[in-house]
Amino acid sequence: MEPLAHTPPPPYYAVIFTSQRTPEDATGYAAMAEEMARLAAEQPGFLGVESARDGDGIGITVSYWESADAIANWHRHARHQVAQRLGREKWYEAFELRVCRVERAYAFRRAGPST
Amino acid sequence: MEPLAHTPPPPYYAVIFTSQRTPEDATGYAAMAEEMARLAAEQPGFLGVESARDGDGIGITVSYWESADAIANWHRHARHQVAQRLGREKWYEAFELRVCRVERAYAFRRAGPST
Repeated sequence: MEPLAHTPPPPYYAVIFTSQRTPEDATGYAAMAEEMARLAAEQPGFLGVESARDGDGIGITVSYWESADAIANWHRHARHQVAQRLGREKWYEAFELRVCRVERAYAFRRAGPST
Repeated sequence: MEPLAHTPPPPYYAVIFTSQRTPEDATGYAAMAEEMARLAAEQPGFLGVESARDGDGIGITVSYWESADAIANWHRHARHQVAQRLGREKWYEAFELRVCRVERAYAFRRAGPST
């Protein structure tokens, strides 16, 4: 997976998912996270995803989508519904989910050697 | 700093900043990042910020704002301009900056003990 998502010119949509993991129960989390990443990438309207998790359990995953409908479809996906339920029951202490319309974007790539 | 931002009901704005750090030059980075976090929080229209950085140098910072104007003002802030220049010159291999309008939001907080 590319670390930074290459997205088309705006407008498009983003889902910002910020989470605090539970310290206790990681059973099945990594496998499910991997399955969801693979499955999301197969959905209609998927544009890309970026993800980072700190050592202290704070994670941010931003997925990008062509439309709000594409997001709604993925939200309702049967296997994703299972993941959402397990997330609330076991894996997350707290999370914030925000659906946004991306209006402007700017990309920077270093041209020469990074000295 | 609270790990998850407590934001008001939408609509409001978000700046998604995803970055890949240079491996070589971290001089002054941590101090500047701290200064920018402190300074951003003092700006009119600032609502909150969430940040995570992986071990492999991928970072995601999402800041939340009342309006697109508040974002534009912070972008033009003299000290922030210095930080942006140094970021392009020294600290970042690549980054993506996306300005979004948050349309929907959902928060989850675990009620009982997290077993």
